[in-house]
Amino acid sequence: MSARQYFAEFLGTAFLLIGVVGSGIMAQTLSDGNIALALLANAIATGCMLYAIITTLGPVSGAHFNPAVTLAFALRGEHPWRAVAPYVLVQIAGGVIGVWASHYMFDLPILQTSGTLHRTGSHQWFSEIIATLGLLFVIFGGIRHKPDTVPALVGLYITGAYWYTSSTSFANPAVTIARGFTDTFAGIYLAHIPMFILMQIIAVFIGHLTLNWLFKPEE
Amino acid sequence: MSARQYFAEFLGTAFLLIGVVGSGIMAQTLSDGNIALALLANAIATGCMLYAIITTLGPVSGAHFNPAVTLAFALRGEHPWRAVAPYVLVQIAGGVIGVWASHYMFDLPILQTSGTLHRTGSHQWFSEIIATLGLLFVIFGGIRHKPDTVPALVGLYITGAYWYTSSTSFANPAVTIARGFTDTFAGIYLAHIPMFILMQIIAVFIGHLTLNWLFKPEE
Amino acid sequence: MSARQYFAEFLGTAFLLIGVVGSGIMAQTLSDGNIALALLANAIATGCMLYAIITTLGPVSGAHFNPAVTLAFALRGEHPWRAVAPYVLVQIAGGVIGVWASHYMFDLPILQTSGTLHRTGSHQWFSEIIATLGLLFVIFGGIRHKPDTVPALVGLYITGAYWYTSSTSFANPAVTIARGFTDTFAGIYLAHIPMFILMQIIAVFIGHLTLNWLFKPEE
Amino acid sequence: MSARQYFAEFLGTAFLLIGVVGSGIMAQTLSDGNIALALLANAIATGCMLYAIITTLGPVSGAHFNPAVTLAFALRGEHPWRAVAPYVLVQIAGGVIGVWASHYMFDLPILQTSGTLHRTGSHQWFSEIIATLGLLFVIFGGIRHKPDTVPALVGLYITGAYWYTSSTSFANPAVTIARGFTDTFAGIYLAHIPMFILMQIIAVFIGHLTLNWLFKPEE
Repeated sequence: MSARQYFAEFLGTAFLLIGVVGSGIMAQTLSDGNIALALLANAIATGCMLYAIITTLGPVSGAHFNPAVTLAFALRGEHPWRAVAPYVLVQIAGGVIGVWASHYMFDLPILQTSGTLHRTGSHQWFSEIIATLGLLFVIFGGIRHKPDTVPALVGLYITGAYWYTSSTSFANPAVTIARGFTDTFAGIYLAHIPMFILMQIIAVFIGHLTLNWLFKPEE
Repeated sequence: MSARQYFAEFLGTAFLLIGVVGSGIMAQTLSDGNIALALLANAIATGCMLYAIITTLGPVSGAHFNPAVTLAFALRGEHPWRAVAPYVLVQIAGGVIGVWASHYMFDLPILQTSGTLHRTGSHQWFSEIIATLGLLFVIFGGIRHKPDTVPALVGLYITGAYWYTSSTSFANPAVTIARGFTDTFAGIYLAHIPMFILMQIIAVFIGHLTLNWLFKPEE
Repeated sequence: MSARQYFAEFLGTAFLLIGVVGSGIMAQTLSDGNIALALLANAIATGCMLYAIITTLGPVSGAHFNPAVTLAFALRGEHPWRAVAPYVLVQIAGGVIGVWASHYMFDLPILQTSGTLHRTGSHQWFSEIIATLGLLFVIFGGIRHKPDTVPALVGLYITGAYWYTSSTSFANPAVTIARGFTDTFAGIYLAHIPMFILMQIIAVFIGHLTLNWLFKPEE
Repeated sequence: MSARQYFAEFLGTAFLLIGVVGSGIMAQTLSDGNIALALLANAIATGCMLYAIITTLGPVSGAHFNPAVTLAFALRGEHPWRAVAPYVLVQIAGGVIGVWASHYMFDLPILQTSGTLHRTGSHQWFSEIIATLGLLFVIFGGIRHKPDTVPALVGLYITGAYWYTSSTSFANPAVTIARGFTDTFAGIYLAHIPMFILMQIIAVFIGHLTLNWLFKPEE
């Protein structure tokens, strides 16, 4: 992989976290305790950002921005294994930088850790499996049948998934880690991160077994 | 039809009900009695899910996810009659599984029946005829003139139809049955289901007579 | 023009008014006095409906659903003058039927006239000129440069125009007349209709002079 | 450049400011102090307008509507330097006319200057750099990889950017100046305009160095 590809993954993930965390801060600040309205704005803004970064960076780096997606591509033989760890590292670094940029834009302390304690428990863990499976489902189904629609598919799927999963669909280990470092609307308590990531990885393996069959090319 | 096609109908309908019921639970929980805001989130999330599942599974199974649509295709000679009952069964099974998955994600009792009593009466029955006719109208009009837009057509039509029909547009017997098994925002009292389904079937026959003429190919 | 084309204009305009008036009733009923939220739902639902009917009926009848648009096409020599009056009549008839269908769906008296008194005055008249000019601008600009995007252009333009014009963008004489016959969120007092229509027609002539030049094909 | 191109830049920027300022006035009037809801309507309406004007006028004038974009194209050698100043002038003139048209539509005094004092400070200045960089990123990434999606990219990016940047993403010197002349929701105090514009210009130069590399064609 080239420097340009690593930079694209870094930049895209940074923008993604600006989308998630920045809009969460704005929404919480303005919504005056109306959580449904805050989540609606947060969901729409995130979907908009995903559409933008996947459309523009997809042809550069594949637009993973997500270690679970990188792993899924590697399992399919469509991403070199030796490039998995570097991709994951720049995704995490980009995510954290995006969180810090959001903090600075909104005049908050740069370095924070989340005190949000409700993102845990077996029900939310199950939700993360469903959320991640759904994400892989739209990515690989879209690539198989309508590659041009993947940016819209991912953007709309995640906008909806803020609502139809109880965890609000993190579905992304780099996003999950980065969100540990903000004590705002989008935050997650650091100790709750590992189980979310484990569920996301489990979903990659379930998805690998089922989706390749569901979307396998005709012989 | 192949096992892959039946599985696609099952999975798609399960995802559809996660979209409808999951987002309804989240919306009702967060909206603090603001029903308009809850319905807006519910409508947007449902439209997002419809776009995702029709885009990715349309080329696999036709992406009916709806016995009324399967019946309409059979009447047009575009779905084998012997495959109607199996399609309907997996759609209903998928729908119920999707409801149960939603309950588990949101830490609610799995087995429920709806106590929602207001989804009945001649006005809502009429609304279901209009809602289902409109759905068939966008599906067959889209297939006739712009097949690539069918996922967006259905997603946007239903997002709007939550608002412009008094029944909020069930328009789908499998969805109607599955929603009988949730006592949450999207629920419908079991005894009120048969009339909704009857209206949906009546709409299929009205649609068959009018839409085939409206969208018939030029000679 | 064929019977199918007249029926398409009738049906499309009926659906359009169901979109506008039905969603207005639902929004007002649920929003508990929160007018901004009601207008947001009303605007989104209308845009969804416009996308659906223009995509599916555009290739049948041109998908005018609007006497101002029919007049504009006639002035450009792209709609036969002798078919203008019949198009306008079926558009108005479809619009009124759509309003009545909405009333029945929502269990309201079928026959109503609007008591909404604030849709008048020179500022709103000016707003209707801008609104109609903008509508013609997206239609003829879209047809000239990107015909496939016209349904999205019109749907999104109108969704936005509920907000950026003070009249909420009627921009359509058939819609204006039909909305005189509902005493709900979308209504307009009958005596205020003629000036709205006059402004819409003035906009057609201004648009004819400017837009044909702006979007004229290269020689 | 031709008269038609200058007129297109003038008209498009006027429509853009009607989109931003008109919807801001409507939103603030109806939302009864619910700023999150007002911003959501404002953001959606602006995105709709951007999609409309870029789709229809892109093939005429390039659809800049933004001196920062015109400067960025000139730096890339894709807009003649001698046409930069005239483009910028008609953009600013169009923007101010759009603001005045909005005032007249909503029955407000035509001539106003903004009393909005909170759009300043190093955090918002940083936000404007990010916002403008992101805008250039979607424009030049879109042009490089998917030119047909540029209207959707810009519309969605800006809809989201109302939320994920603390300045709500002016990202446009003509828009910034025009918004100085309205004492409504979208206003900015005149004395705070120069720093916003300076940040936008800085972003153009940062973008020139990084984006050309990121999106450079394969050799």
